Amino acid sequence: MTAQRRELERVNAFSDGVFAIAITLLVLNIDVPDVATGELGHAIKDLGDDLLAYAIGFAVMGLFWYGHHRLFSRLARSDGRLVLTNMLLLGLVGLMPFSTGVLGNYDGPLAVSIFAANVGLATIVDGFLHLIARNDELEEPDAVRMPHELSLTWARAVVFLVSIPIAYLASPEIAQYVWLLLIAIVFLRRWG
Amino acid sequence: MTAQRRELERVNAFSDGVFAIAITLLVLNIDVPDVATGELGHAIKDLGDDLLAYAIGFAVMGLFWYGHHRLFSRLARSDGRLVLTNMLLLGLVGLMPFSTGVLGNYDGPLAVSIFAANVGLATIVDGFLHLIARNDELEEPDAVRMPHELSLTWARAVVFLVSIPIAYLASPEIAQYVWLLLIAIVFLRRWG
Amino acid sequence: MTAQRRELERVNAFSDGVFAIAITLLVLNIDVPDVATGELGHAIKDLGDDLLAYAIGFAVMGLFWYGHHRLFSRLARSDGRLVLTNMLLLGLVGLMPFSTGVLGNYDGPLAVSIFAANVGLATIVDGFLHLIARNDELEEPDAVRMPHELSLTWARAVVFLVSIPIAYLASPEIAQYVWLLLIAIVFLRRWG
Amino acid sequence: MTAQRRELERVNAFSDGVFAIAITLLVLNIDVPDVATGELGHAIKDLGDDLLAYAIGFAVMGLFWYGHHRLFSRLARSDGRLVLTNMLLLGLVGLMPFSTGVLGNYDGPLAVSIFAANVGLATIVDGFLHLIARNDELEEPDAVRMPHELSLTWARAVVFLVSIPIAYLASPEIAQYVWLLLIAIVFLRRWG
Repeated sequence: MTAQRRELERVNAFSDGVFAIAITLLVLNIDVPDVATGELGHAIKDLGDDLLAYAIGFAVMGLFWYGHHRLFSRLARSDGRLVLTNMLLLGLVGLMPFSTGVLGNYDGPLAVSIFAANVGLATIVDGFLHLIARNDELEEPDAVRMPHELSLTWARAVVFLVSIPIAYLASPEIAQYVWLLLIAIVFLRRWG
Repeated sequence: MTAQRRELERVNAFSDGVFAIAITLLVLNIDVPDVATGELGHAIKDLGDDLLAYAIGFAVMGLFWYGHHRLFSRLARSDGRLVLTNMLLLGLVGLMPFSTGVLGNYDGPLAVSIFAANVGLATIVDGFLHLIARNDELEEPDAVRMPHELSLTWARAVVFLVSIPIAYLASPEIAQYVWLLLIAIVFLRRWG
Repeated sequence: MTAQRRELERVNAFSDGVFAIAITLLVLNIDVPDVATGELGHAIKDLGDDLLAYAIGFAVMGLFWYGHHRLFSRLARSDGRLVLTNMLLLGLVGLMPFSTGVLGNYDGPLAVSIFAANVGLATIVDGFLHLIARNDELEEPDAVRMPHELSLTWARAVVFLVSIPIAYLASPEIAQYVWLLLIAIVFLRRWG
Repeated sequence: MTAQRRELERVNAFSDGVFAIAITLLVLNIDVPDVATGELGHAIKDLGDDLLAYAIGFAVMGLFWYGHHRLFSRLARSDGRLVLTNMLLLGLVGLMPFSTGVLGNYDGPLAVSIFAANVGLATIVDGFLHLIARNDELEEPDAVRMPHELSLTWARAVVFLVSIPIAYLASPEIAQYVWLLLIAIVFLRRWG
């Protein structure tokens, strides 16, 4: 293994670590209820919003990681631009336990917008990662890209950003349905 | 190392990360007591339930990880179905610090049922992972499976799900003894 | 890389993960003070015990990890006994953020004893790991052991367990000096 | 892969783990607000300082990790001195979620000084890591160092330590502008 490959492996390891930790910290937003034993049933029912936010956050971050891991599996080497842009992406991913916590604890368009802005920005940075990998010719020569991979990344960013005015003009619920639809489409496409 | 193998390695690294983090977050359910120094002895004794829940949660998740690591050590490649189903498994594993916290803080059948449902569902998803690995022919051609591996996975799922009516109809303690018996059996089988 | 080696690598990765997470969770025991800006100086001074406990916990766990990584670097394969005993060790390591938190928050012999018991038990399990590696012939044939490695592991366990009666019969401070002396000796021996 | 290389890989994995966890724990300093839904907007605006501290902490630790990963990618083997000094570095990195939390929650020179001291000390230890790698001849014979790498490490340490008197004599804001300037310079140098 060359020093070049070793450097890339450590970027992978560090990124996987941040993704894995951020996704696992989501559970800390679901507080163990502090009520009398007889009230536990009601308290658990009240956690419905938290559990839905956990599921949405986990799905979004999981699909994110999946895209990241497909891109990085194709790389032959890294450069400064890639590592620094990746660091920015990880900084936005690292914020997601916070914005998922806001989503689970508040109704209304602002909470939905905070989550959508976090995901939308991270997706845009993800798109730039793809651009850097191409422009700086970091990919293995025989790497196979999924068709329309980059266009679909931009499309995902647009959907999340457009869900912000939807949350204000239509309703926060509709914005969340839009996300769920997007998650379902990405899921089905990768499943097939 | 081929791109295919590298993709698989990252699924491994990400999964190991989530398992390791979720299992280590269990300790956050054992609060450092906040009492006068003279009362520390009593406060520690009151942590008995938390420590038992920690031990059960750690054992269940540890044996889970063990099965996961045996399956993934046999794989030659991954596909979308495997990665997405694995993500669902990790989402359920990531919830276990919550359900272990509920188990440690509450008596009664509901707390036991929440833990059992979490483990039972995760075990069912684990069974589907085994099925996908076989159907999609992802295993190394010369891979050696443990005898009856899949049947025993379904059996473990059934035991946890059946412990829910046991907790309500008999008692939560008996349900927990059933788990401990199962853990002991799996432990002894893997030890030998 | 054979399936055998891959299995071992995942045990390594999982163990490194738990050690790294548990050691990093120690910081959560040092609460960011919640006082007026003018009082921050006093509040930071009151954190002295927490910082000392952090340093002791980090040093003990760091040297632990070092011994673990030296043993596992020598292994050629794992077996059920090793993985399960390692899981028990990780369960005790995973408790150390709790016992380090107790150590930082309480004076008196009980807090010192809880920390010493946690470390002592983990060291004993570590000794059994060494025994299993030898008895089950899991080490590479050409592996080089440090001289007296196993005897020194037992000696470390004895020191921590003996520090418990020292804390009660002499004083908790003397027990902690004993640890610091031991940490210094191990440190110097590995440094040289 | 030799035992020597395997030992080094585990030092890498453990270090990456601690860096990744410490950087991801920064988000726990940004509490999800606990207010009425209508007050969420104001509460989020009040998080401005926390978000700025998160960004500074993430950037500092990210660039730290980058330097660490460049050094360790050049190594052919580790020795006791390197592992123990690295452990000291990780102990200081592990404190950064605490000092970043202090930075986000308090105005005034003391909070700025705590953060600067933590980063400054860690940078000095980082410099010693470079020295040990050279003196103990741990680097690959054909390793390529960045020009002036070690001098620039000392310079970074000096900047952070000098920002402490700046915070007291000039103002805490100016001290933070000095950091931001340094971060921008390092960033641009690595980007290019």
